[in-house]
Amino acid sequence: MWMQSEPSMLTAPNLLSSGLVEVVTTALDGLTYRDGKGSAAGAARQVKQNQEADADQGGYADIERMIKQAMVGSTLVGSYARPVRWSRLIFSRYAVGDAYGEHVDAPFMRADDGSEMRADLSFTAFLTGPEAYDGGELVLDTPWGRHAVKLEAGSVVVYPTSVLHFVAPVRSGVRQVCVGWMQSRIRDHEQRTMMFDLERSISGLAQDENRRRLTRVFAGLLKMWSS
Amino acid sequence: MWMQSEPSMLTAPNLLSSGLVEVVTTALDGLTYRDGKGSAAGAARQVKQNQEADADQGGYADIERMIKQAMVGSTLVGSYARPVRWSRLIFSRYAVGDAYGEHVDAPFMRADDGSEMRADLSFTAFLTGPEAYDGGELVLDTPWGRHAVKLEAGSVVVYPTSVLHFVAPVRSGVRQVCVGWMQSRIRDHEQRTMMFDLERSISGLAQDENRRRLTRVFAGLLKMWSS
Amino acid sequence: MWMQSEPSMLTAPNLLSSGLVEVVTTALDGLTYRDGKGSAAGAARQVKQNQEADADQGGYADIERMIKQAMVGSTLVGSYARPVRWSRLIFSRYAVGDAYGEHVDAPFMRADDGSEMRADLSFTAFLTGPEAYDGGELVLDTPWGRHAVKLEAGSVVVYPTSVLHFVAPVRSGVRQVCVGWMQSRIRDHEQRTMMFDLERSISGLAQDENRRRLTRVFAGLLKMWSS
Amino acid sequence: MWMQSEPSMLTAPNLLSSGLVEVVTTALDGLTYRDGKGSAAGAARQVKQNQEADADQGGYADIERMIKQAMVGSTLVGSYARPVRWSRLIFSRYAVGDAYGEHVDAPFMRADDGSEMRADLSFTAFLTGPEAYDGGELVLDTPWGRHAVKLEAGSVVVYPTSVLHFVAPVRSGVRQVCVGWMQSRIRDHEQRTMMFDLERSISGLAQDENRRRLTRVFAGLLKMWSS
Amino acid sequence: MWMQSEPSMLTAPNLLSSGLVEVVTTALDGLTYRDGKGSAAGAARQVKQNQEADADQGGYADIERMIKQAMVGSTLVGSYARPVRWSRLIFSRYAVGDAYGEHVDAPFMRADDGSEMRADLSFTAFLTGPEAYDGGELVLDTPWGRHAVKLEAGSVVVYPTSVLHFVAPVRSGVRQVCVGWMQSRIRDHEQRTMMFDLERSISGLAQDENRRRLTRVFAGLLKMWSS
Amino acid sequence: MWMQSEPSMLTAPNLLSSGLVEVVTTALDGLTYRDGKGSAAGAARQVKQNQEADADQGGYADIERMIKQAMVGSTLVGSYARPVRWSRLIFSRYAVGDAYGEHVDAPFMRADDGSEMRADLSFTAFLTGPEAYDGGELVLDTPWGRHAVKLEAGSVVVYPTSVLHFVAPVRSGVRQVCVGWMQSRIRDHEQRTMMFDLERSISGLAQDENRRRLTRVFAGLLKMWSS
Repeated sequence: MWMQSEPSMLTAPNLLSSGLVEVVTTALDGLTYRDGKGSAAGAARQVKQNQEADADQGGYADIERMIKQAMVGSTLVGSYARPVRWSRLIFSRYAVGDAYGEHVDAPFMRADDGSEMRADLSFTAFLTGPEAYDGGELVLDTPWGRHAVKLEAGSVVVYPTSVLHFVAPVRSGVRQVCVGWMQSRIRDHEQRTMMFDLERSISGLAQDENRRRLTRVFAGLLKMWSS
Repeated sequence: MWMQSEPSMLTAPNLLSSGLVEVVTTALDGLTYRDGKGSAAGAARQVKQNQEADADQGGYADIERMIKQAMVGSTLVGSYARPVRWSRLIFSRYAVGDAYGEHVDAPFMRADDGSEMRADLSFTAFLTGPEAYDGGELVLDTPWGRHAVKLEAGSVVVYPTSVLHFVAPVRSGVRQVCVGWMQSRIRDHEQRTMMFDLERSISGLAQDENRRRLTRVFAGLLKMWSS
Repeated sequence: MWMQSEPSMLTAPNLLSSGLVEVVTTALDGLTYRDGKGSAAGAARQVKQNQEADADQGGYADIERMIKQAMVGSTLVGSYARPVRWSRLIFSRYAVGDAYGEHVDAPFMRADDGSEMRADLSFTAFLTGPEAYDGGELVLDTPWGRHAVKLEAGSVVVYPTSVLHFVAPVRSGVRQVCVGWMQSRIRDHEQRTMMFDLERSISGLAQDENRRRLTRVFAGLLKMWSS
Repeated sequence: MWMQSEPSMLTAPNLLSSGLVEVVTTALDGLTYRDGKGSAAGAARQVKQNQEADADQGGYADIERMIKQAMVGSTLVGSYARPVRWSRLIFSRYAVGDAYGEHVDAPFMRADDGSEMRADLSFTAFLTGPEAYDGGELVLDTPWGRHAVKLEAGSVVVYPTSVLHFVAPVRSGVRQVCVGWMQSRIRDHEQRTMMFDLERSISGLAQDENRRRLTRVFAGLLKMWSS
Repeated sequence: MWMQSEPSMLTAPNLLSSGLVEVVTTALDGLTYRDGKGSAAGAARQVKQNQEADADQGGYADIERMIKQAMVGSTLVGSYARPVRWSRLIFSRYAVGDAYGEHVDAPFMRADDGSEMRADLSFTAFLTGPEAYDGGELVLDTPWGRHAVKLEAGSVVVYPTSVLHFVAPVRSGVRQVCVGWMQSRIRDHEQRTMMFDLERSISGLAQDENRRRLTRVFAGLLKMWSS
Repeated sequence: MWMQSEPSMLTAPNLLSSGLVEVVTTALDGLTYRDGKGSAAGAARQVKQNQEADADQGGYADIERMIKQAMVGSTLVGSYARPVRWSRLIFSRYAVGDAYGEHVDAPFMRADDGSEMRADLSFTAFLTGPEAYDGGELVLDTPWGRHAVKLEAGSVVVYPTSVLHFVAPVRSGVRQVCVGWMQSRIRDHEQRTMMFDLERSISGLAQDENRRRLTRVFAGLLKMWSS
């Protein structure tokens, strides 16, 4: 079971259909790229080495929208992350030798509607599968040790933005990913995890008094903890 | 069902066995009483008219202990109130014409171990049944209207100490009750109610993954909210 | 006094003038209605049986604005609810046999400016008086028991959205109401009630040092608790 | 008025009667003293230069108790500080050249019942008046500038323990003071100030509905904020 | 050092360049003014006696923008105040005899983008220096006593909006200032001060493990406390 | 570095000296043991299979005291855990085939002074080294995956009590450990980690203004977060 021992990170296998991955990667092939340092700030800038699609070109916004729609449509992501604001998305390409050294993402950033958002959760949608490149793992340097993440094309990993992480150097092939950030309705990670546990438990119950009571608790906590 | 529409107040029918009620009332008959104004403070003093057993006499402490043991032994009370400190108990007698005018209990008081306690919940254990007296209802003047409470001998009502209340004048017979206060592990009433809902729901589930998750949420909230 | 024992629910008599009620009901007569299930979600959908004016027609927005202006102009509502966001309004008609079974309103919904809002308070403005229909009470199933509400045309009831409630079946005549939701500056009901108590107390004081100090406390709490 | 612009610090003039001051200073004359560095920790130790009565001798505890009784009996101190735990008291003597350099008191310390306490408020009771010595001011280095405090014998100043402070060198005569610490029922200074404002305002009101409402708010806040 | 003993108030010397002050005052000379009572509410209205530039005229918005740009460009202001919303600015002129009696600014007001904002911090930018007028001090009536502020042209003072304050009567010359308000990312003043301390300390450290850890704490607190 | 990527769990190598370990294990050899199920509650009871020294015998309390003194004397443990209450200690022996299945420790338990404590942190002091037995790993089932812990004799691991964990079956030899629980001054794990980061950073700084400021922040947070 994917959730048994890893509720801190959500791995959503095949969240993007293979058809969508194909459409997206084909569209990306037609776009121009530039140095990824442009979207990094402070110390992160010095350790970043990759290429990113230029957001100011036709078609870019369409690809963004397709990815977001797929994520918004995922009950699993909604239940784990409870997003209320989204950043714009970044489409990155790591060629041989490219990498992104250890860094923490900025705590606040620009949302896709121009407002400012708190970056609670980061995600990486894998657009090329593990067979397409060597190295290039997303490595989370967590309070309980390092976790290397390298998923199938179409799979997505979501994790708390406060986690230190890096992308290991690509040793062969090309790694294509889409990355972005969400502000969650629930600021605190421990509380967000409780809501996730509660919602999954409720969904498995019959329509009885237990379910009614738990639904009441769920709604009460959601209001108490939203921010 | 007692809980359907009244989770703010707990009515525990027959919490004290008829045998215990008999032992207690018999023992109380052998004690001396004094004016109840002695245990009231401030404005409450002026509206109080009843008699209370003198706590400084042999046998008093034994009766107190028996009542507390019965309450501590009640899963229902434990789950609703989560007591961590208890006041000393008061045994009151309302004769014809006696009453206790509208008042709010003090927010902090002395616990039975001499420390100070936050008075979160008040309770009244009825030692004589409704057939023994006319009038004498405990009336709670709640945010949603007045509620008159008059229970069988051995039944107990527990309610938030912040509720304005009064005892209506006794018109015939004698009303005997035992009253006391508890500090709850959970200070906030809304949070305490959520824990109550959560615990009752969990107790009805099978030993599966749902139950494990909810138990984790329950323990996490209990620690987060205890004070 | 309306407030003595019911601060949890606000009943504002004749908040809408009889002239305004007449204008609104006349305008509503000219609108088309559709099945009310369309604006309900989840379990609430199954227990809803009424008609609602279609919001996509000329004149609707004008009626909405008139009602909101009247409510914004009420010091009593402002002081009890402290609204910062409003939902769009719904105009409902319950004919004989119509009802809305027991449900809880959604904790978050769309505000009238398109943003998302926390639904803290619900309100019902009665557009037809009790003489116009039998049954059709709004029944609040509160933690302290059930309260049936059926007011004069022009009167409004405001209550916490978390309260379970239903509309009893209409047995004769037609019940017309306007319902809506507000997000309050103060999320927590207990804190909101304290602000209400504080503001009403201050307004009754002379311009002395007491008033200055209480005003300072009021402003401090308002900032501390706003969310 | 003492309170107008200085609610952060409480100056209680003549809290100790002249008779009590005389009894205490006479008793202190019979005690032995030792280097004050013994009761300081860390960096404070290096900047402390005074003498303190040895707490392990007959009569010391009696003097302590008399001072505490006088302070506990002060409505003003109770309303400003709301003490729930007290440290043991220190009786200091500053001779010519003695001083206590800038320092902050420890955040947690031993209470007089052996338990650990949070040091929320510090106080200095002046046992000799300003005529008895030159220099020796208690200087509070506050967020809004420096405040020199030098009071009559019997007067007491109480201030938040988090404030940086020092005792200026004594240039002639002898400065005798008693210092101690309190844990308040209310941890946060801003909240404690609100309770002080609220209580003083209520005490000036008649026994009407306003007072009842404010008393309810006061009790609710006291329970909500106690820790 | 400017910050040593006054972290509650920020004095930023020469934040506006002399060139900018000249441009602004010249532009202001070309604008029409009206009675300042127009922008005051409630009790403040009665004690206000000055002139303010009419905001509805050409050129006004340009001056506003120049001032805000200068303030946004100040690391010191950013680090002390962490502004996320700004009010519109007011340009005031105090002639001989003008003054603004003791008042507290409103806790909530309109932001320059039309949304509502919490007024956490107030600022006054001095456009004429102390040589240009007698009297006219901005006097803050703080919990630790009164502080008179009268700065060079181009200097700015920022202080918590909750502080009672007044402008003393101008006895000769003309006092010109620009005043405005900010909503801070950090609501609580004590927490905001901690962030200020933390950020200044971090900026003085080398790029080592200490700095990495403190940066992690800083980002964590910023997210935990933002509101 | 031990702390780099694992701040959630503290591994303190050789906290107990080899001399102390020898004294303790020798003393334990003279004690009688009983079935470990006796100290487990609820579901944990069913999965526990080991032996524990009987606490009601001479010498037991001495061993306990020695272990606690060593732990209290560790700056590292103090800084990571900030203990304010301790449970009694348990000395366990796992022979071949013994194990302790997956469980979570109780959220509240009895402290060694008879009061009730919140169990924030659990610890295991290893009394026999990895060479003495096969299997018997303490396995933490964390939100970021499983961590097996098996340390040298005298080393101690401390981890949040909320973590699910188990002891793997011993396949050869005997595993001897001492386990216990602490209530921390800081309830929340994220806050406790920040205090740990802050204290370690401060200890590495020179006695300058930076250190003074950070010390002020540290003391402020300690008071704000203690519970």
